[in-house]
Amino acid sequence: MSDPIVIGILGGGQLGRMLAMAAARLGFEVVILDPDPKAPAAQVANRHLVAAYDDPAALAKLAELCDIVTYEFENVPDAAIHTLDDRVTVHPNATALATAQDRLIEKAFLVEQGIGTAPFRTVDNQEQLESAVEELGGEAILKTRRFGYDGKGQMRVVSGSDHSTAFADLGSVPLIAEGIIDFVAELSVIIGRGADGRCRIYDPATNEHVDGILKTSSVPGALDEETVELAKQSAAALASALDYVGVLGLELFLLADGSVLANEFAPRVHNSGHWTEAACAVSQFELHIRAIAGLALPSVERHSDAVMTNLIGDDVTLVSDLLAEPDTVVHLYGKSEVRPGRKMGHVTTITRR
Amino acid sequence: MSDPIVIGILGGGQLGRMLAMAAARLGFEVVILDPDPKAPAAQVANRHLVAAYDDPAALAKLAELCDIVTYEFENVPDAAIHTLDDRVTVHPNATALATAQDRLIEKAFLVEQGIGTAPFRTVDNQEQLESAVEELGGEAILKTRRFGYDGKGQMRVVSGSDHSTAFADLGSVPLIAEGIIDFVAELSVIIGRGADGRCRIYDPATNEHVDGILKTSSVPGALDEETVELAKQSAAALASALDYVGVLGLELFLLADGSVLANEFAPRVHNSGHWTEAACAVSQFELHIRAIAGLALPSVERHSDAVMTNLIGDDVTLVSDLLAEPDTVVHLYGKSEVRPGRKMGHVTTITRR
Repeated sequence: MSDPIVIGILGGGQLGRMLAMAAARLGFEVVILDPDPKAPAAQVANRHLVAAYDDPAALAKLAELCDIVTYEFENVPDAAIHTLDDRVTVHPNATALATAQDRLIEKAFLVEQGIGTAPFRTVDNQEQLESAVEELGGEAILKTRRFGYDGKGQMRVVSGSDHSTAFADLGSVPLIAEGIIDFVAELSVIIGRGADGRCRIYDPATNEHVDGILKTSSVPGALDEETVELAKQSAAALASALDYVGVLGLELFLLADGSVLANEFAPRVHNSGHWTEAACAVSQFELHIRAIAGLALPSVERHSDAVMTNLIGDDVTLVSDLLAEPDTVVHLYGKSEVRPGRKMGHVTTITRR
Repeated sequence: MSDPIVIGILGGGQLGRMLAMAAARLGFEVVILDPDPKAPAAQVANRHLVAAYDDPAALAKLAELCDIVTYEFENVPDAAIHTLDDRVTVHPNATALATAQDRLIEKAFLVEQGIGTAPFRTVDNQEQLESAVEELGGEAILKTRRFGYDGKGQMRVVSGSDHSTAFADLGSVPLIAEGIIDFVAELSVIIGRGADGRCRIYDPATNEHVDGILKTSSVPGALDEETVELAKQSAAALASALDYVGVLGLELFLLADGSVLANEFAPRVHNSGHWTEAACAVSQFELHIRAIAGLALPSVERHSDAVMTNLIGDDVTLVSDLLAEPDTVVHLYGKSEVRPGRKMGHVTTITRR
């Protein structure tokens, strides 16, 4: 009789929930740390520590209970990761997290690795904002450097229009201004990397966003072979540069000339990889768990083509109809309260290749 | 905001565990009733009532907490189902359970539906045993009528050999003697039936048993089309006769002349249907949950061919090698104690059709 290996997850949302189920399927026990007593992931985990992410006692307990700790979102307080790092194995590492948490550091890091991005400027006050927009060609997207997600903390500004309160409107916090890119498609790559440096890269998906929130991901994404290779190479270069262990999602823009520019990366499983659970033998969630637990990485080949659609807010009322569709996999997150813009579940339709 | 639907499961083993995860993926909450504090299913459920299956207070609590109750094994005490039946929706129904619990009633019921079985005789004492073996051609398999599983409670007797203590050896309980069938293969059919009578039937698998325990299930099972149809029709006739709601597994023997005889059925998800989770868009576990919850039933078409192998006892030490195989899905049950004959997990290898 041997003690089971215990995996801790910071964050108990839908990503944590799907990670927890993947961990359970591999025989691991799971502890969730999340301040919400109704956290979706806690419903399918062995144990739930209901506490703030920076609660020292809860972090100490998590470290004590777990063999490996991971996280489901990139806005985990730095301090939490450092506290845990001293006591327990944490994947992905603190550098990856810190890099992803700040859009300026993130973009600078991407460029350093030879991965192109939109042109960008740092914006620390209203004055810098004005000059940044000019330098970027008279139009830019302002984003808070930290804590943005699903299009929140963003604003488009055009030279000549009145944007004199833009800096204040975004909370008077450090911003980044990004030049406008004329892209023809948005795509993303999900990569898993083991501690030995070996990688597994799923085929890139093409993504559609509505109101800043991912709506659909499709594989294959009507991409030519060169683009697919370019996208995969970018993800591999990034993961390697970060000495990354686990799954990472890299979002890219495809330009009309076939080149790609990186938008951002998430140091975690990614919404645009949810199709993998329906169309591959092993999903991104299990790939992540295998990578952080030091297990062999699986093949990431598709057995089917797939389109994943997020169920956002009231979309969830469509579920009974969706369940009647053949070759359709519905996945709900156990959130009883429906709110506009809230991700309630997703649905993947697979088609034979 | 609406209250989530809660599903109760009697039995917290691996079948309950996989049912609980399927229920969670559909957004349901799950309560497990199982006397074992370490029950595998409880680890992935919202709540665990640690109590005996016939504990009146626990059954009352389960009925109070749940909208629908189901079970993962057929040896649930009758009394438990009747207690629950008065207070909450229970699927599958008490008739199906009672029929499956007693090999004599089961075989008589199958024959009534026009589904052939091996010849059988009831055996209530040593004397009847002697004459039953003679009538069945001088050789028979004795089985306890109730509470047998994985080859337990069985014994082969041959006329002329000394079997004078056989009845006592099997516990002096009511037995059934079954004539020997010269079968060429063992197969099984997993069927799901909704309250409206609509059925979904997965392709039959061929099964190999070792020491009375299922070792592998393969689809397709090298069966001709007629056999497949015959097997599916038998399952449909049985489910309909039982007015069954949920998933049922019917085990059959294939004879050299292409005909099939029923061995037994399980009023629950079945080990020989575990391959469905890797080779179909929707698994037998979700099919069961959909059926008992009154949701639309999914397509049960395979996207891949598959071989499922049980990991029994020490087989579990092979896991790290199995994880390195491509297109292989490993599923472990969270049982920390390895025991000979104990089902620790299963592994499904899929091959493209």
